[in-house]
Amino acid sequence: MERYDIAVIGTGPAGVSAAITATIRNKKVLLLGSKELSGKLMAAHQIRNYPGFPDVPGAELAKAFEKHLDSLGLSITEKRIGAVYSMGGYFALQAGNDMLEAGAVILATGVTQDKPLPGEEELLGHGVSYCATCDAALYRGKRAAVIGYSPREETEAAFLAEVCSEVLYFPVYKEGTRLPESVRVIPETVVGIERVNGESVVRTAENGYPADGVFVLREAVAPGQLVPGLEVEKNHVRVNRQMECSIPGVFACGDITGTPYQYVKAAGEGNVAALSAVRYLDRMKRENAE
Amino acid sequence: MERYDIAVIGTGPAGVSAAITATIRNKKVLLLGSKELSGKLMAAHQIRNYPGFPDVPGAELAKAFEKHLDSLGLSITEKRIGAVYSMGGYFALQAGNDMLEAGAVILATGVTQDKPLPGEEELLGHGVSYCATCDAALYRGKRAAVIGYSPREETEAAFLAEVCSEVLYFPVYKEGTRLPESVRVIPETVVGIERVNGESVVRTAENGYPADGVFVLREAVAPGQLVPGLEVEKNHVRVNRQMECSIPGVFACGDITGTPYQYVKAAGEGNVAALSAVRYLDRMKRENAE
Repeated sequence: MERYDIAVIGTGPAGVSAAITATIRNKKVLLLGSKELSGKLMAAHQIRNYPGFPDVPGAELAKAFEKHLDSLGLSITEKRIGAVYSMGGYFALQAGNDMLEAGAVILATGVTQDKPLPGEEELLGHGVSYCATCDAALYRGKRAAVIGYSPREETEAAFLAEVCSEVLYFPVYKEGTRLPESVRVIPETVVGIERVNGESVVRTAENGYPADGVFVLREAVAPGQLVPGLEVEKNHVRVNRQMECSIPGVFACGDITGTPYQYVKAAGEGNVAALSAVRYLDRMKRENAE
Repeated sequence: MERYDIAVIGTGPAGVSAAITATIRNKKVLLLGSKELSGKLMAAHQIRNYPGFPDVPGAELAKAFEKHLDSLGLSITEKRIGAVYSMGGYFALQAGNDMLEAGAVILATGVTQDKPLPGEEELLGHGVSYCATCDAALYRGKRAAVIGYSPREETEAAFLAEVCSEVLYFPVYKEGTRLPESVRVIPETVVGIERVNGESVVRTAENGYPADGVFVLREAVAPGQLVPGLEVEKNHVRVNRQMECSIPGVFACGDITGTPYQYVKAAGEGNVAALSAVRYLDRMKRENAE
């Protein structure tokens, strides 16, 4: 299997910056995330404090980032990483049924402002899943419920509709939905998930909807879920000034490391994380050679 | 006297970024440094990893920073700060014979790679000075020696020549000098400073040059000298992830906080330092109101 030097998870300003610097340092980089870069960045009306770009709309800054990636031949791999496992000497990244490998990992997945739903964490792996690509097969011919936190999750629901007998979709956003007719959209406020008689139930303010499996889909997964064993503080990853996490070989940058949630702070941390990852890889190489 | 909210010392990417964010947060900012921004930035042939600017010459990135400052009505005050004193509730910044005042201070002066000369630190204040503007008057009609670490220091030597009877200039760089004829340029390698019979002596590899006062002029002053009492580690300032220094109300960003010495890392830290300073000022205001 192809082994990358550095996997960068996330394509906001932090991930983009990390990938750029790691590439310039001649590392083989796997940049994972959305080709539309960060949803938050794209939606930003006007950014006034990214030095060098006075009063720039988020979409325009994103365009400049894309151009920068292109100029270095860096492309984005649109895979959703469900989990990162330390394999002793390298890392395995689960992307649906695929496993990807990298010598070091940089987490730049942003931060989820959403609190877990009541029941969500308790039922994870027992009727609740974060990854449609990974777990769709478990619910073939069955009924799935999808709680989607952004319009991007509609693609996942549409995919599930090809596999499951029935898909219920609960949008946790105001924009309208664009889904195949086979998906039943339920515009009610989700208040929690329960397990009743061996069946999962999505509880809304009005009703209860039983399903064989419930998918909770957000842009950013809580970091402790993404990398088992990682030290976190609330929904942030613990890092030092070199952007090193508690697991050697894992680095983090951007909103995931804590406030302030700012574009240039994220880009700066991406740079530091990349250089720390480069140093880590060089040290590993030296130690293996000895 | 006019009291600024935040004084930012240094006009490299860190200082520029801090000034931009502090201004956007409606603080009254005093940005101190060179109008040519950072000498290091200006000299950079090509910068490849400042996200959004692929392959940009340093001078061009500096131009973009200038445009950004202009767009916010931010101007640079070209004063050299000799020392920053905590006055309990505010800070006094010594700029030659002037004193400036600010509620919070952000240090973004970069890092000096040069080790102090033998004798320099011991004789500081006893025949050795870091500030021509501050101490020229002490050597009126006398002989001064200037050890200049960059062509920028020639202005200081020219100024001293107007006051002193004789000025010796020791350039610690390869570029030629452009100085008034009244300044005697001595292109020898300085190896140290001594005090002999009540007189300072600049010692070169070849000779000894007595002078009444010796000025050692570098772009960046060691941070511990700039802010008495500040906790430093070698030539870096100790900061936490919020860019807070050991003295409340003092923040730092950029190369002065440690490696890696990178433009976007500096800009990111400037942003964080500014927001921390804003939070500090708001807290002070609340406490004073109580």
